[in-house]
Amino acid sequence: MDVVLASHGGGGKLTEGLIKEVFLNKFKNSFLNEMEDSAVLEIDFERIAFTTDSYTVKPLFFPGGDIGRLAVCGTVNDLLMRGAKPLFLSASFIIEEGFRIHDLNKIASSMAKACREAGVEIVAGDTKVVARGEADGLFINTAGVGLVPKDVNISIKNAQPGDRIIISGTIGDHGMAILSSRNGFTFDPPVESDCGPLVGIVDTLNKFKEAVRVLRDPTRGGVAEVLYNISEASGVGVEIHEENLPVKPQVLSACNMLGLDYLQLANEGKLVAVVESSAADKILKAIKNCKYGHDAAIIGTTNDTGQVTVRTPLGTSRILSRPLGELIPRIC
Amino acid sequence: MDVVLASHGGGGKLTEGLIKEVFLNKFKNSFLNEMEDSAVLEIDFERIAFTTDSYTVKPLFFPGGDIGRLAVCGTVNDLLMRGAKPLFLSASFIIEEGFRIHDLNKIASSMAKACREAGVEIVAGDTKVVARGEADGLFINTAGVGLVPKDVNISIKNAQPGDRIIISGTIGDHGMAILSSRNGFTFDPPVESDCGPLVGIVDTLNKFKEAVRVLRDPTRGGVAEVLYNISEASGVGVEIHEENLPVKPQVLSACNMLGLDYLQLANEGKLVAVVESSAADKILKAIKNCKYGHDAAIIGTTNDTGQVTVRTPLGTSRILSRPLGELIPRIC
Repeated sequence: MDVVLASHGGGGKLTEGLIKEVFLNKFKNSFLNEMEDSAVLEIDFERIAFTTDSYTVKPLFFPGGDIGRLAVCGTVNDLLMRGAKPLFLSASFIIEEGFRIHDLNKIASSMAKACREAGVEIVAGDTKVVARGEADGLFINTAGVGLVPKDVNISIKNAQPGDRIIISGTIGDHGMAILSSRNGFTFDPPVESDCGPLVGIVDTLNKFKEAVRVLRDPTRGGVAEVLYNISEASGVGVEIHEENLPVKPQVLSACNMLGLDYLQLANEGKLVAVVESSAADKILKAIKNCKYGHDAAIIGTTNDTGQVTVRTPLGTSRILSRPLGELIPRIC
Repeated sequence: MDVVLASHGGGGKLTEGLIKEVFLNKFKNSFLNEMEDSAVLEIDFERIAFTTDSYTVKPLFFPGGDIGRLAVCGTVNDLLMRGAKPLFLSASFIIEEGFRIHDLNKIASSMAKACREAGVEIVAGDTKVVARGEADGLFINTAGVGLVPKDVNISIKNAQPGDRIIISGTIGDHGMAILSSRNGFTFDPPVESDCGPLVGIVDTLNKFKEAVRVLRDPTRGGVAEVLYNISEASGVGVEIHEENLPVKPQVLSACNMLGLDYLQLANEGKLVAVVESSAADKILKAIKNCKYGHDAAIIGTTNDTGQVTVRTPLGTSRILSRPLGELIPRIC
């Protein structure tokens, strides 16, 4: 069995074989092995977070990650952005006939590894096969369920004027990694995707939960889109300080060369946090001690102007450009 | 805005516009309008059912339904097959650039209507756009969360020798509807897909819950695959009686003509129930009074042979053929 055949999608013995050999082997848990129509999960709680994303990233393997790691981390991070503890994922595969089983195995292994890092299990799944030319290799959908602790109230609507804005690390790495791998240019040192689960950082933020108002991961549309989302949903203005924005020198110079704004590039292992100003320094310090949090920075403040602006090192201020549409297609 | 553009997938203003105009309009609820990274849901329970399916059906519109109705009913039915009350769905769209907004609107409306019928809400979503030729029009993933009542214990493993097997209606309608619409042949009267939510039938079955052991919807792989699944998971034999199998005459004659086995055709609004024999007649009568249950029938019994067999009207018995692989690609 080297490639996926149309008959692997038929729902019979061959489908079962593919699922067992490629997926169950790696996503080992009692729920999946049952092969029931739904997983039944016992959880002691009152509120759950529920989210979904389909992943169509191109190429499937890129510096710093692959579609499998992305599909786990992206959905885990969306749960975390509501303050939830991620618990369970579903994984659904749309596979183009002829796709190499070797690559499918690599991707499933990568998903299993990311699940272990994030502390989640894949408990429900689905596999569809379409003919050659009807999909581009592989698309993955993951949905996620997490537990929201009783006293957590994190929402895009909670920012207040005078808050501080923190980014958990360097900006634009995922977008630039995809762009460079797709167009065949390299950096020295190389730019890798930041694709990773933010479980550790959010665990740490939960220790300051009275002070944490908004969490958002700046994926498609980048930090710029997230700042506009926060401004609109909370009815606040946002000012960021250009000299405080953490960005790798290679990403910055590539952006300058290509005429791109790194604030509009996708990130897949970063979060933007809006926190109460008096706790901002302590929170920043705590994030810096986390895995994936080393380059965290306070990048700005909220205000009551209603505008989203950037203050330049010269002291002038300009309206931040908001992404209109596609900057880089199939970034995630 | 007539067709979907690549820039509709970029995560910026245009993505937001597409989501608001096409989806939020139809899937109206407070969770989606928040446009947060995850929906936070308050539910009072201890056990939830969680499932996912991607839908790649071709064509997107077929007699009796469309991909939207299918994507809602398929996932709702998978939750119901564990005895769960379906509550919340996510919906994720992978759209080929150039797809007509008019068709997307029709499909979203159809999803909203199916949700109302099933009593569920779409509370989380995602939209990705890929270039022309990178997907075949539209793929939809739905994941679902449902509440499992404390005293419900329905599982593919629960069948016991001597139980009765009930099918909730005519067999093979969805498969034949897709096949005929794809190949341009028509029936008089027409064969329509049975695509529908089984909420009413499962509500009724819950009144007999001590007697209901297994529920399974015979989608890909058809009734034949489900009978094999039950046999293997519960360690029982199954014998079905050919003369008791409900099948529309047009479906039967088309199967004979095309050399197909209707027991291997997909159904999208039917369930197979394994019930305690003493309650079978009462349960059958109750199902027959439900929407979508009019043609229900007791089709066989379980035994301790370990084999899955068909008894013919002549009194002879043969091993039921099990679907190996693809019978009809992209059936759901």
